[in-house]
Amino acid sequence: MSPATPYLEVDIGRLDRNIERVAAEAATAGVALRPHVKTHKSPDIAHRQLAAGAVGVTVATVGEAEVFVRAGVTDVLVAYPLWLTDDAAARVRALTEQAVLTIGVDSVTGAARAADLLAGSDVRLLVEVDSGHHRTGVPPEHAGAVARAARGSLAVVGAFTFPGHSYAPGAGADVARQEAAALTTAAASLRGAGIEPLVLSGGSTPSLAEADTDVASELRPGVYVFGDAQQWELGSCSPDEIALTCRSTVVSHANGRMVLDAGSKVLGADRAAYSSGHGRLLDDPDARVVLLSEHHAVVETEQPLPPLGSTVRVVPNHVCNAVNLVDELWATGPASAPSPWRVAARGRNS
Amino acid sequence: MSPATPYLEVDIGRLDRNIERVAAEAATAGVALRPHVKTHKSPDIAHRQLAAGAVGVTVATVGEAEVFVRAGVTDVLVAYPLWLTDDAAARVRALTEQAVLTIGVDSVTGAARAADLLAGSDVRLLVEVDSGHHRTGVPPEHAGAVARAARGSLAVVGAFTFPGHSYAPGAGADVARQEAAALTTAAASLRGAGIEPLVLSGGSTPSLAEADTDVASELRPGVYVFGDAQQWELGSCSPDEIALTCRSTVVSHANGRMVLDAGSKVLGADRAAYSSGHGRLLDDPDARVVLLSEHHAVVETEQPLPPLGSTVRVVPNHVCNAVNLVDELWATGPASAPSPWRVAARGRNS
Repeated sequence: MSPATPYLEVDIGRLDRNIERVAAEAATAGVALRPHVKTHKSPDIAHRQLAAGAVGVTVATVGEAEVFVRAGVTDVLVAYPLWLTDDAAARVRALTEQAVLTIGVDSVTGAARAADLLAGSDVRLLVEVDSGHHRTGVPPEHAGAVARAARGSLAVVGAFTFPGHSYAPGAGADVARQEAAALTTAAASLRGAGIEPLVLSGGSTPSLAEADTDVASELRPGVYVFGDAQQWELGSCSPDEIALTCRSTVVSHANGRMVLDAGSKVLGADRAAYSSGHGRLLDDPDARVVLLSEHHAVVETEQPLPPLGSTVRVVPNHVCNAVNLVDELWATGPASAPSPWRVAARGRNS
Repeated sequence: MSPATPYLEVDIGRLDRNIERVAAEAATAGVALRPHVKTHKSPDIAHRQLAAGAVGVTVATVGEAEVFVRAGVTDVLVAYPLWLTDDAAARVRALTEQAVLTIGVDSVTGAARAADLLAGSDVRLLVEVDSGHHRTGVPPEHAGAVARAARGSLAVVGAFTFPGHSYAPGAGADVARQEAAALTTAAASLRGAGIEPLVLSGGSTPSLAEADTDVASELRPGVYVFGDAQQWELGSCSPDEIALTCRSTVVSHANGRMVLDAGSKVLGADRAAYSSGHGRLLDDPDARVVLLSEHHAVVETEQPLPPLGSTVRVVPNHVCNAVNLVDELWATGPASAPSPWRVAARGRNS
C-alpha cells in the first residue's frame, strides 16, 4: 500500500540499471568504485551497490559511517576533513573493530591531531587536496607535508579530491582534467614524503564520464543511483534514468496553475544558478516548479491541468537533500524488493 | 551535555522575549494570535506560545495537527487547501474528538468534497483567498461561492490568506494593505452567501508589524519565535532577537577561509533572491556563507579566522527548513527548561 502524498518513490528497475551501468564502466576502466552513500543513506541500496562490485562506500560523517557499518558494510571512507574531538575519536576507534575505516585530513594540524587521538588504531588517512572547487583540501603539492604530520602514528594511504566545480553546464571535461592533474601532483608530493599512494580517489557524478582512470585509482560518485533535475539539466543523466521522484497530489488550481502538496520540506530548497526552476515533472518535461514553499509547489505547464486530486511525479533539483528529509523510500518494481526502505542515516550530520 | 556539532541551539531568553512581545502586541491590538508551528514543530514551544496567550496553533498538514493534538493542543487550524482522501478524512474526523479543528479549502470542488467526506463532523472550514502572493487561494470575491459548496454540511467560519509576497525588501506595508483588502472583500462575499465570518485570518512575520487589526480577527506568524537570516535581511527582526542558531565547528582553513561542518543538511538550502549569502554568523555580522554543500559551509569574513576546532553560531537563511532537518533542539538558558526539545512534527508532510 502506498502512503499519503507527498512521498519519495524509487523505480527499482532504473535504480538497478544505474548501479549496474556505472559498476560496469568502472570495471572496464579498471578503477575501484566507492559510491558516496550520502545520496540515499539507505543500507538496502548500499548492499545493491556492493553486490554490483563496489569496493566499499563513501560517507561524509562519523554518524553515517556508524549506520553503514552496523548494516554490515566493512570498508568505509569518511571523505571529509574531520576535526576530531575525544568523543569522535572514540567513535572512530570503535568502528575500526568492525570495518576498514579511512578518514580525511586537510591540514597539518588536523593530521597531527588525528595521529595523536587515534594513535595505535588501524584507522587509515587520506589527504584531501583541492582540485579547483575551492571548498576544502590543501593545494596538491602540500599533500606530503600533511601526510608527514601523521606518519609514524597512522597509515597515510593516499589522497582524495572532490571536483565539485563539475556542477556547472559543460564543465565536466575540464574539471576531470583538473582532477587528474591534482591527483598526479598529490601523488608526487606524497612520494616526496616517502609515501607510495595506494589510493588516489576522485569523482563526482557530472565529471564521471570524463574521469581519467589512468590517474585515479578510485571514484566516488553519489547521485548517479537516482539522478535528479540538476543532473538532467547538466546532461549527466537522461530523464529515463531518473529513478527517484516525489509522488505529489494536485491540491489547487489557483490562478490557473497546478499546485502540488510537495514543498521544500520534502523536495529540498536547492536551486543552483543553472537550474531552470525549483524542480521538474518527470512526465511533463516542459513543466517547471516556478514557486516553492514548504508545502506547496506551483507548477507552470503547457499541458492541460491534471484534475484536483490526481498525482504527478516531481523530480527534485538535488536528490541528496530530498532523501535527507524522509524516513522511508517507497520502491516500485519487482515484488522481490519489499519496501519501504529505511533512510537509516537521515539526519546523521555528526 | 552538548551533542556533537552541528546542532541547533535555542536561546530560551530570546525565544521567550519573542513569544511575549508578539503576544503583547496582539493583545494590545485586540487580535487573536494563532502562531504557525511549522516553524518549530515542537510541542514544548507551542505550549510556551499558548501560555503567553495564543488562542491555538496553525499547522500545514494533518500529520502536524496529529502531533500537536496528541501533545494537548485543543484548537488547531490546518491553513492549507487539503485535498481529502478517504484516509485523510478519517484522520481529520478522529482529530475532532480531541480538538476544535478547522481546515482550509480553496475551490468549489474541494469544499464539496470536504462536505461529502466530513459530513456530520464538527470540522470547521475557512476559505483560502489570494491576497497577492498567487500561490493558493481563490480571488476574495469568490469566497462566498466556495463556502456555498460546503454549507449545510459543514460550518464555514470565515476566510484566511497568506500574504507571502511580504518576503521581499520593503514590501511589508503594501502587502499588509493588500491583505486587509482581500479579507474585507472575502468577508463581504461570505456575507453575500449568508455567512457571517467569525474568523478573518492573516499574517506573516514580515508583514506582522503593519497588519490591519481592524480587519483581521486573527494573525498566524510563524518565524517570529526564532528569527533567521531572511528576517534579519528583511528588517523584520534584529540580530539580538535571533533565538536559533546552528552551533558548528571550524574544520578547515582551506584557501584562507573558514569552513564549517554545517551544510545544507542542517541549515537547509534556501536562498531567496534578496539573501546576501547562504547564511550568516550571529557573532560576526559582516561574515557570509559564500558556498554551501551538504556538510560544508565556506564563510568569508573580515575578522581573523577562528582556530580549527573552535565553534561559531550560524544563522540559517530560513529557520523552518533548518528545524525540519533535526530531531532535537538544544536549549540554552534557564535551568528550568530541560532540553533537548523534540522536533516532534519533523517530516510530517502528509
